[in-house]
Amino acid sequence: MKIPVLGVCQTKFGELWSQSLADLILEAGQGALRDSGLKIDEIEMIFVGNMLAGLTQDQEHLTSLVASVLQSSAPVVRVEAACASGGMAIHQAVLAILSGQVETALVIGAEKMTDQPAEEIAQALMAAASPEEQAAGLTFPGLYALLAQEYLREFSATETDLAQVAVKNHHHASFNPKSHFPFPVTLDQVLSSSPIADPLKLLDCSPVSDGAAAVVLAGPSWVKRKSQKNGIAIIGSGQASDVLGLSQRRSLLELAATRQAAQIAFLQAGAEVKDVSLAEVHDCFTIAEILALEDLGFYKKGEGHVVEGNGEVKLGGKRPINTSGGLKACGHPVGATGVKQVVEAVWQLREAAGKRQVPHPHLALTHNVGGSGGTCVVHLLAK
Amino acid sequence: MKIPVLGVCQTKFGELWSQSLADLILEAGQGALRDSGLKIDEIEMIFVGNMLAGLTQDQEHLTSLVASVLQSSAPVVRVEAACASGGMAIHQAVLAILSGQVETALVIGAEKMTDQPAEEIAQALMAAASPEEQAAGLTFPGLYALLAQEYLREFSATETDLAQVAVKNHHHASFNPKSHFPFPVTLDQVLSSSPIADPLKLLDCSPVSDGAAAVVLAGPSWVKRKSQKNGIAIIGSGQASDVLGLSQRRSLLELAATRQAAQIAFLQAGAEVKDVSLAEVHDCFTIAEILALEDLGFYKKGEGHVVEGNGEVKLGGKRPINTSGGLKACGHPVGATGVKQVVEAVWQLREAAGKRQVPHPHLALTHNVGGSGGTCVVHLLAK
Repeated sequence: MKIPVLGVCQTKFGELWSQSLADLILEAGQGALRDSGLKIDEIEMIFVGNMLAGLTQDQEHLTSLVASVLQSSAPVVRVEAACASGGMAIHQAVLAILSGQVETALVIGAEKMTDQPAEEIAQALMAAASPEEQAAGLTFPGLYALLAQEYLREFSATETDLAQVAVKNHHHASFNPKSHFPFPVTLDQVLSSSPIADPLKLLDCSPVSDGAAAVVLAGPSWVKRKSQKNGIAIIGSGQASDVLGLSQRRSLLELAATRQAAQIAFLQAGAEVKDVSLAEVHDCFTIAEILALEDLGFYKKGEGHVVEGNGEVKLGGKRPINTSGGLKACGHPVGATGVKQVVEAVWQLREAAGKRQVPHPHLALTHNVGGSGGTCVVHLLAK
Repeated sequence: MKIPVLGVCQTKFGELWSQSLADLILEAGQGALRDSGLKIDEIEMIFVGNMLAGLTQDQEHLTSLVASVLQSSAPVVRVEAACASGGMAIHQAVLAILSGQVETALVIGAEKMTDQPAEEIAQALMAAASPEEQAAGLTFPGLYALLAQEYLREFSATETDLAQVAVKNHHHASFNPKSHFPFPVTLDQVLSSSPIADPLKLLDCSPVSDGAAAVVLAGPSWVKRKSQKNGIAIIGSGQASDVLGLSQRRSLLELAATRQAAQIAFLQAGAEVKDVSLAEVHDCFTIAEILALEDLGFYKKGEGHVVEGNGEVKLGGKRPINTSGGLKACGHPVGATGVKQVVEAVWQLREAAGKRQVPHPHLALTHNVGGSGGTCVVHLLAK
């Protein structure tokens, strides 16, 4: 598989009170078009990844809203898979291009979350969990705290291991002007932050953010015909599902859908885990990054927490993880996240990531999770 | 294009208070699998069309819910395009099969609407309209009433012409045991029903329904390899977009996205409008069927209303429209509708439609609209 990425854009992530969902869609969409050199009427199909427009914006017809905002009559598809909506939108665009029915596609991930009171957003986000988990009064920090408790107990890991994830990702975000929190935090600050759901503290959690990201994709033959430079391309796109509720899972020590989606993507790419130069993984909570490192095959089960403090996954280390700052510090506008991960991978592969550039990367992985692991999408990108 | 339809299923449409959304998904999914002879582990990708699960069921992670209910770890994609969600789910499944990445797909359209008070559902449905239309206090009957007023004025059509659509579709539904309203209504009953939004009356409007429908699709090479009988197939699948709000449209006398989606589908199918034996069109309100007859090219602009009373589009006529009873009388569980239309087309082409069978049909069209025309999906199916 080889689907060239012609253009990318990410808006600033954060509390963007002066921008509506439509404003964010327009900014990211136009930005990616500008970066690609294409005009909107050259785009044959548009995909939008979004979770909460219905619950927080009273908008369940985003397809037509996007067509209106971008002034396009091309088919628009909204896909929704909780926090994996963005990655899934890219996956669908890849399938559409491979189908031969369209040659170009624009993918936009966008979310507007900070207009609502915090408790309303917390409740809306529980729409990504099972009816039983909702009825039990669980929250998303609570669900991931259950995973963290199981992990710490089984592998004798510590709250400090978790906190190292936050310290590293804030360090990375401090080099990313688009990030929600472009500043470092210390281990002490994380460990002494307010308890949220034991063992997770405030600084173990990703924030509620506004933001959007977009990519322009094209078929290889279109790129050749237009004499476009054939730069970065998606070379693997895997998606998998798991049961919705944690109580139905075989194990709480892994997200099985991550393992399955990664297998598909590596098989398509003809690549191996050891080839990966850098990865953007779904660190909605610090424990989630550790699970991802293991489920993606970078480390053996139970060993992911060891590397968080030793520099291996930090900028300058063997394989930097979440150079953007991750969901934790770059921010987590849920529908935008999966698209933003691909944007960061493209910037890194173009060697255009500024102060957070990984030296001469050749293969990048992105990993986007819905809910507590019910949906997972993995992409591989290469030069 | 030729994508074989191996199996179909429709649940009863109506006020199904004893069945949850998950129950409906399971019944339709298992029914289509049984009809196809495939087992769930032979399905490589699942698509679900749904509009309101977030707003009415607090569920925005349907991908994983569907995986749980059907006990599958295959990738699941939820697409959402207001009332066109079902048709778009089929369109996406067609693209996925054409991509060569999967050989089989299950598409489920499902909606659970009658657990909420009527006013809450009316408000939730306005999430398919523009922010300006929502702020103005418009309702969906109100939006379509604006289209009806313009049509009646421009073409000197009458409220009786509109009422004939309801009379015909209730007549058809009386032969459909799955329909929400399996009984006829008289012209007098329609014309004397309660005013809703002038000139639309209660019996000009489709109902709020629960229900689900599902289809199993496969690639032609898979069908050949498995020595499956290669019966009915999707031979055209078009989708188009228009601006969201009526005030931004060039004309209120047509839905431009219908015209564009139909053009694509006919081009793909290598077929002409005159070849169509029967069609399921999106008659959310009686005026919508008349507009569809014209925008799909069956009749010239301004002439669609003339045929509603003369028998041409009724069972026994030249080209029966909405043999299922349409949205008007078969019911309109929004996310299920676009899939149900394809199910009815398949039953007709199999000549398995019982008392509502069209004699020896060879080409069937389905037409699914989101909102007031912001999204449209058209499918063509043939033996």
